[in-house]
Amino acid sequence: MNFAEELEKKRAYCEAVLKAYLPCPEDGEGGSQTGRVSHFAGKVTEAMRYSAEAGGKRLRPMFLSETCAMYGGRKKLAEPFMAALEMIHTYSLVHDDLPAMDNDDYRRGRLTTHKVYGDGMAVLAGDALLNYAYETAASAFDRAETAEETGRVIRALQLLMRNAGVHGMVGGQCADLEAEKKDKISAEELVYIHEHKTACLIDSGLSIGAILAGAPAADIEKLHTISSCIGLSFQIQDDILDVVGDEKELGKKTGMDAEDNKITYVTMYGLDAAREEVERLTGKATELYDSLTADNLFLRELLISLVGRTK
Amino acid sequence: MNFAEELEKKRAYCEAVLKAYLPCPEDGEGGSQTGRVSHFAGKVTEAMRYSAEAGGKRLRPMFLSETCAMYGGRKKLAEPFMAALEMIHTYSLVHDDLPAMDNDDYRRGRLTTHKVYGDGMAVLAGDALLNYAYETAASAFDRAETAEETGRVIRALQLLMRNAGVHGMVGGQCADLEAEKKDKISAEELVYIHEHKTACLIDSGLSIGAILAGAPAADIEKLHTISSCIGLSFQIQDDILDVVGDEKELGKKTGMDAEDNKITYVTMYGLDAAREEVERLTGKATELYDSLTADNLFLRELLISLVGRTK
Repeated sequence: MNFAEELEKKRAYCEAVLKAYLPCPEDGEGGSQTGRVSHFAGKVTEAMRYSAEAGGKRLRPMFLSETCAMYGGRKKLAEPFMAALEMIHTYSLVHDDLPAMDNDDYRRGRLTTHKVYGDGMAVLAGDALLNYAYETAASAFDRAETAEETGRVIRALQLLMRNAGVHGMVGGQCADLEAEKKDKISAEELVYIHEHKTACLIDSGLSIGAILAGAPAADIEKLHTISSCIGLSFQIQDDILDVVGDEKELGKKTGMDAEDNKITYVTMYGLDAAREEVERLTGKATELYDSLTADNLFLRELLISLVGRTK
Repeated sequence: MNFAEELEKKRAYCEAVLKAYLPCPEDGEGGSQTGRVSHFAGKVTEAMRYSAEAGGKRLRPMFLSETCAMYGGRKKLAEPFMAALEMIHTYSLVHDDLPAMDNDDYRRGRLTTHKVYGDGMAVLAGDALLNYAYETAASAFDRAETAEETGRVIRALQLLMRNAGVHGMVGGQCADLEAEKKDKISAEELVYIHEHKTACLIDSGLSIGAILAGAPAADIEKLHTISSCIGLSFQIQDDILDVVGDEKELGKKTGMDAEDNKITYVTMYGLDAAREEVERLTGKATELYDSLTADNLFLRELLISLVGRTK
């Protein structure tokens, strides 16, 4: 099987796991692992599912699943965390798209949640997804079979939370929102934004999979650094694609950063230096990856492919 | 010491616990139990503190602290959950006040978070508070001294999450938002809204305190029912005060429900029947409370005082 086929198979698996964990209205279709929701809360449940089922590469749960498998961990422990991580990613997109934030009408070619359900319901749907992410992750306690596994679930849950909050993704979103008001930001600030907005949730993928599988502490440390390199280069690549990418292939408008006068890696350093930085970071990530005590060739190829991506 | 003095002392204690757990900017004052936040995320940290330090009765953490003490539980386990519960309550107010939701400029006589920090930052501050609530609650794992205590923290965390999400408070907020669009709602729907929007977080107070202290299962079951009665009567009392309350004493405008054509217990049943329902529910709650295996006279008086409250 080639890489593209394998990637699609794994993407479909991540999506199936997510769907199985999303809440269902009591009178609706589909199966939910964590109970049906009263029809009085049917609208927010529908908005949660609409937001989460918008497609996407499902990279974060895939990272989680792959590092867990690589260290011989159990799928049963990983799956609630896979769904939870994708719910966190989804909630951040729903709130980012709000008129109060980026004010986007479309995402991946579909109307954004607030355009379909209204601004108030989109605020609630985002809140509900974040909360449900933790309900879902915490359901892994009921699947732990030993005190050792319970301990791993505790550490995984604490990392999932920290990476999503004010010390993680929300911190990056705050700095990003503040940067929009400024004419100039420092290189340090730009790195802070990228590392927190993007790298933190990648770390939740790579590191939590390893934690749940009981990987050696030194490997988990390396995975944190790999996440930081991959997250940063992924975001720089996003900035590059906004300048040179193909709108059809990307499924979104390009040239938006220039239109918004946004300070990016490209505006700060130029296209060539941005491309070199992506190569440098990926080189560092690959070197560290190759020094891990376990191996997963698919994951290695996936991480490298993120550099050369065109969408 | 009389009840009013005791109440104020306990309120101040709850507030001190909350303050100790709120995140601090790295260059700011005050102590945080869970680490300082980068100055790049200083604005959202400031907005979180502004929102949480707006005052209030701090009833939910007080309930938690009181039932935990009543069953001989440890403060060290209760305190992270007290702070977490008040952060959840606060985030819900920040998002409720947004223009996309209730569009309120003032709360407790102060400008609302979005009026001070802007709509986008208020969305983020609410998200950050919800996330930090769980980070804070999950820090209780590091304080558990036995496997038994770890098990209690797991159950407490799972209940905290469920009561806040789509099966709990957010479910109630969704139904409430939907009801605003309708001319008529059923009595069943009105009870659903009140029980979920209000009673669920009261349950997180009363029940989690008991769970952390290892209270008997039968008592925890009764506390769920007591929470439901108290939450419902608390909300009906809110509807009553909006009609007959004193603006100065309440610190907010009255007559708002009528202005908004809102369907409340009072519009559905009339003032007298609403008052009778408050009495009936409180009677039921008191009876159940008196059948618990432990006793706490202050908490009993506090629960009863919620019926007769004028603010």
